[in-house]
Amino acid sequence: MAESTVRTELSTLGEFGLIARIASRVQLQHRSSVKGIGDDAAVFDPEGLHQVITTDMLLEGVHFDLGYVPLKHLGYKSVVVNVSDVYAMNAEPRQITVSLALSNRFPVEAVDELYEGILLACRNYGVDLVGGDTCSSASGLVISVTAIGAARKEDLVYRGGAKDNELLVVSGDLGGAYMGLQVLEREKAVFRETGAQPDFAGHDYILERQLRPEARRDIIDLLRKLEVKPTAMIDISDGLASEVIHIARCSGLGVRIYDEKIPIDPATHRTARDFNLDPTTCALNGGEDYELLFTIAQSDFDKIKGNPNLTVIGHMTDEPSGHTLIDRHGGQHALTAQGWDSFLKKQ
Amino acid sequence: MAESTVRTELSTLGEFGLIARIASRVQLQHRSSVKGIGDDAAVFDPEGLHQVITTDMLLEGVHFDLGYVPLKHLGYKSVVVNVSDVYAMNAEPRQITVSLALSNRFPVEAVDELYEGILLACRNYGVDLVGGDTCSSASGLVISVTAIGAARKEDLVYRGGAKDNELLVVSGDLGGAYMGLQVLEREKAVFRETGAQPDFAGHDYILERQLRPEARRDIIDLLRKLEVKPTAMIDISDGLASEVIHIARCSGLGVRIYDEKIPIDPATHRTARDFNLDPTTCALNGGEDYELLFTIAQSDFDKIKGNPNLTVIGHMTDEPSGHTLIDRHGGQHALTAQGWDSFLKKQ
Repeated sequence: MAESTVRTELSTLGEFGLIARIASRVQLQHRSSVKGIGDDAAVFDPEGLHQVITTDMLLEGVHFDLGYVPLKHLGYKSVVVNVSDVYAMNAEPRQITVSLALSNRFPVEAVDELYEGILLACRNYGVDLVGGDTCSSASGLVISVTAIGAARKEDLVYRGGAKDNELLVVSGDLGGAYMGLQVLEREKAVFRETGAQPDFAGHDYILERQLRPEARRDIIDLLRKLEVKPTAMIDISDGLASEVIHIARCSGLGVRIYDEKIPIDPATHRTARDFNLDPTTCALNGGEDYELLFTIAQSDFDKIKGNPNLTVIGHMTDEPSGHTLIDRHGGQHALTAQGWDSFLKKQ
Repeated sequence: MAESTVRTELSTLGEFGLIARIASRVQLQHRSSVKGIGDDAAVFDPEGLHQVITTDMLLEGVHFDLGYVPLKHLGYKSVVVNVSDVYAMNAEPRQITVSLALSNRFPVEAVDELYEGILLACRNYGVDLVGGDTCSSASGLVISVTAIGAARKEDLVYRGGAKDNELLVVSGDLGGAYMGLQVLEREKAVFRETGAQPDFAGHDYILERQLRPEARRDIIDLLRKLEVKPTAMIDISDGLASEVIHIARCSGLGVRIYDEKIPIDPATHRTARDFNLDPTTCALNGGEDYELLFTIAQSDFDKIKGNPNLTVIGHMTDEPSGHTLIDRHGGQHALTAQGWDSFLKKQ
């Protein structure tokens, strides 16, 4: 797990020792963070802004497999999935808390590696680790991260603000994280059966999408620069189909998206074909892309037109028209939210 | 687990169905809660106040045993342990998020029971459940709760504000929750060995202390009414000794406490004796009492004197004097923070 050859048992530190070790590496950088680790609660100053809060829990064996996920990447990703939700509200992430449950199979060095990733993400996204909880687990690793963000009330963007005829826009490209996972699972299975070393050649992009996703702060900044305020926004964690339907339902509308418009990277496309999977299905139902999906007024189209980071994939309709996918031949299909149904998966 | 004879599999609801079921039972009551469950993040309005944030994670087999903890009580307690931390900052709890990991051995009815307790605590403490995460677990139940509170900047009380000679005060009585746990563990062992039904006669008080603790909002209200602002405060979750030392260390001081002053309920005392345990040791090192420990200026003593909810157990000293327990015969002992060292326990 940890590459280091030194193994220090967690019991030599104890809980208070571990907290002190973590706290010693944290430097508060946001002026709104008043008090971090070390009291009954952390304190922050909202500076007159509204606050948003979001939380995600990651469990070993359900959300990640330490057989192929490096702990540093896992720590990084556990922060990214939360700040991504904050950006999806058009807010600025500022503070996070991290709760960890660890079994004694994890040495101190493994915890250090995990926090290296957590603190790197904190630096990259300008957020402060202000608190958390550390306890023992009878079996696997559990990470629960909560993020707090801030925004002016009038800047917040909800899922339910889309209007009929508005354009549906997606950032980046989709399906890559899902195909990265398929490659990791395949190589793991091959290794188990034959002992052959994993072959990841040519899969850098999709592996990066799976193992080290980034939240699209740059898109939030770009939209601000372009003076485009989305009317509704969501981040794509469960797959495009499910998120498109969320925006439509919350806005009391229908939606049409066009298969040929869905942005899919050539590497994702090629790998999907190698796996005999339909690339569009991977984009629609694969998860963890952490791109942003949002709606804009038709009148804002000229401002985003031609930007390589943004793709119009469809538009909102009236509610009775339902949720429709138009295929490359003009055929209409009902869009269904398959998403990650964690209670059906892996049980 | 659930007393109901109906068992509905979680997979029949799926994750989105479960979230909708939970959301349908939640009514936002705090005017500062702008948006609850149903978007990428919840939104709240700090109303010009500073904010505090605290989080606690509870794992089956580490923090609770569903063999004797009813799910409703567990839900209640998971909220209480967090709002207790908010009160310990002299702040008002307002919002919580709840993340759950569940294996498919839990039917929908069990989740309902858990949320019944969570929502009862929300009503009792005036906080809103505004979000969370729901996912599957490969084995046990995991609950991670985060609480947000608000206070005027000048009202916040930290651990590190105590001054030399100030009085150390504790609310309620101590050691009860720990003795309740001993009784539960004993009866469980007897049941396993002999099949005998548990005998809880005469243990109502300590069982209540363990299974259904309350956070001391009443003490925060009382102190405000008495116009006493603590100079330092902490809640007693890990045992008195550890918390006393936290206040001393954070304040850069020493501390003296008096064995004979430590408030212990007769039921706790009697049960400790039955178990051949020293009642004072149970109060010092047993955890989960969720009482408040705080320091006040000597000049405030008259305001709290004679109040049955408040007991002066010692005073702060200069730092070189260290952390001292004075026994009933005037003997001095170094106070050590045993606490719950979760990495040493139950592994």
